[in-house]
Amino acid sequence: MNRREVLKGAALGAVATAGATVAAPSIAKERIEVNMVSTWPRDFPGLGTGAQRFAARVDAMSDGRIKINYFAAGERVKAFDSFTEVASGNAQIYHGAEYYWKGKHPGFAYFTAVPFGLTYTEMNAWIRFGGGQELWDKLAGEYGLKGLMCGNTGVQMGGWYRKEINTVDDLKGLKMRMPGLGGDVLSKLGGSPVSLPGGQIYENLVSGAIDATEWVGPWNDEIMKFYEAAKFYYYPGMHEPGSMLSIGMNKKWWDGLKKSDQLIIEAASSMENDVMMSEYNYKNGAALKSLLTNHGVKLRGFSDEIYDSFGEASEEVFEDVQEHSPLAKEIHQSFVNARSEIGAWAKISDQAYVQQRNRVLGL
Amino acid sequence: MNRREVLKGAALGAVATAGATVAAPSIAKERIEVNMVSTWPRDFPGLGTGAQRFAARVDAMSDGRIKINYFAAGERVKAFDSFTEVASGNAQIYHGAEYYWKGKHPGFAYFTAVPFGLTYTEMNAWIRFGGGQELWDKLAGEYGLKGLMCGNTGVQMGGWYRKEINTVDDLKGLKMRMPGLGGDVLSKLGGSPVSLPGGQIYENLVSGAIDATEWVGPWNDEIMKFYEAAKFYYYPGMHEPGSMLSIGMNKKWWDGLKKSDQLIIEAASSMENDVMMSEYNYKNGAALKSLLTNHGVKLRGFSDEIYDSFGEASEEVFEDVQEHSPLAKEIHQSFVNARSEIGAWAKISDQAYVQQRNRVLGL
Repeated sequence: MNRREVLKGAALGAVATAGATVAAPSIAKERIEVNMVSTWPRDFPGLGTGAQRFAARVDAMSDGRIKINYFAAGERVKAFDSFTEVASGNAQIYHGAEYYWKGKHPGFAYFTAVPFGLTYTEMNAWIRFGGGQELWDKLAGEYGLKGLMCGNTGVQMGGWYRKEINTVDDLKGLKMRMPGLGGDVLSKLGGSPVSLPGGQIYENLVSGAIDATEWVGPWNDEIMKFYEAAKFYYYPGMHEPGSMLSIGMNKKWWDGLKKSDQLIIEAASSMENDVMMSEYNYKNGAALKSLLTNHGVKLRGFSDEIYDSFGEASEEVFEDVQEHSPLAKEIHQSFVNARSEIGAWAKISDQAYVQQRNRVLGL
Repeated sequence: MNRREVLKGAALGAVATAGATVAAPSIAKERIEVNMVSTWPRDFPGLGTGAQRFAARVDAMSDGRIKINYFAAGERVKAFDSFTEVASGNAQIYHGAEYYWKGKHPGFAYFTAVPFGLTYTEMNAWIRFGGGQELWDKLAGEYGLKGLMCGNTGVQMGGWYRKEINTVDDLKGLKMRMPGLGGDVLSKLGGSPVSLPGGQIYENLVSGAIDATEWVGPWNDEIMKFYEAAKFYYYPGMHEPGSMLSIGMNKKWWDGLKKSDQLIIEAASSMENDVMMSEYNYKNGAALKSLLTNHGVKLRGFSDEIYDSFGEASEEVFEDVQEHSPLAKEIHQSFVNARSEIGAWAKISDQAYVQQRNRVLGL
């Protein structure tokens, strides 16, 4: 049943009459059936369970009227075919990370995470009040899509290394699993970024085929057991400082929804944005403790010198991105403005506060 | 019309039939009319507009089926009578800050902000995954209420001072507007905390009746023009590191709602939690810039020595709180556990990242 047929049947009754004691018991509500694909394996902690929670929430909020058939990666289409599946209208919604589509347009990377980019709260401020959503609409609209924030991993760790990284020279020749623009930064510093799906990282790290890998953060990383092959766990990751996940919807379908249904989907998506972030922050805290005390992991901070080099290399990567198109440049400039203003505020609010509080309390 | 009457009329039709081509055009949906009171003046930037946005969102999400009659402070009851108005069932929802009710039980303070407490993301993690919501339910339930997160100001500034605060001695005898547990901390350090409603702060600061005041952050503070009387603007505030706002609902009314309506309210409230925080972070950034460049404000960070003293005094205040009751102690312990685990993660994620990024970029 497609939406048009559904709406035809439902259009009969549009006005709600409070307390009406009608004899006819039937209610014609606009039932909507949605196919949703995702880029995550079923029940993948955080990313997958969050996407599933979003789907279940829309269903429950609408009292079953908006029915979402959820397909994990591979169950209907392969993970990276989600974009086309929804853009074409074969499915209505995907859940994924926009930077997966940076091959189509580098601007998409800004709506997940870029090196030296925005944290969770900064990203939300940019998207909601700094013009981010409008630029995202413009970009996604060119492909027949409409995106909304739907989850976040928070600041990712800098990765697992078999040896200590004391100077920039230690990055030279380093074979490291790091996809996206972060990998481009590593490459400019003489490293060899490798792209590997999650399921193949562990064996490559154990065999020595790669020297290092990043993944997400303590909660997800502990499950992957990288600590068995690489003991040095570096922070903070410069490559994904708050990776936003998203739903992407077929724009024609979205535009045809009534306003209240759009709002139900938007609120459910917004709630998942916060719930997933909360879950990562809570479980990362506990997992970090476990990694350090149960698995002999050695926590290391990148030096200022290395961060300076990361910064310089990131600027070079951004130059390349901006040369792609006027829209890529417009997105980058909007991002830079947001990072400058919101980031200056973050420095004297959250950052300064947590630094002082934790120093005093010895956390 | 009360809810019981509404439900009586609506109970007739519970099953939605997709695409049913019924001849009878009437739809009996459960219309719900809600009276909502608030602790904020109408259109007060951030706090008031956020509460109003929540009310409008529920209305729009339900396609007008859940109608919220919103009353700003003083329009139906005075701000601080909101608790009783909703607990008694005269109104169904309030929007406010739980620490306003700390006279009834000091445990309420933890569900807005306490000195040396949680930031926005840490608070969300504690409430959603660290047992915070369950303890809040237990506490509010004793008063016939059910609370949900619905907004946040983020880290508040340390306040406006007529003179520099270089040592702890400079706090002695200082008459400062600082309500709540933060005021108790100041008091333990020899200061004289004063409680003043927002509308009276400016005149007291100009006349010299008080030496200093805290309010919220750059966006709200700039509107208040405190810079005309006190040029030294200190960060970071130890007293409210992420003040959560909330809706409080009459528990009997809430329990009687159908699950889908509860979820609509919860999602709308969760969305406002994020939207308000985003608005503060975005507008604080711009306002901070304006305060420094247009109004000659002198930004100062509290010294380590002063923060150490804040920390010691806070511990004393917490001792007093825990002596109140077993539930106060239980809430405090849960909070301390969350602060320890989530806070240790915050240190090497958001805090470490923003510190490095801003250092490299000169933000």
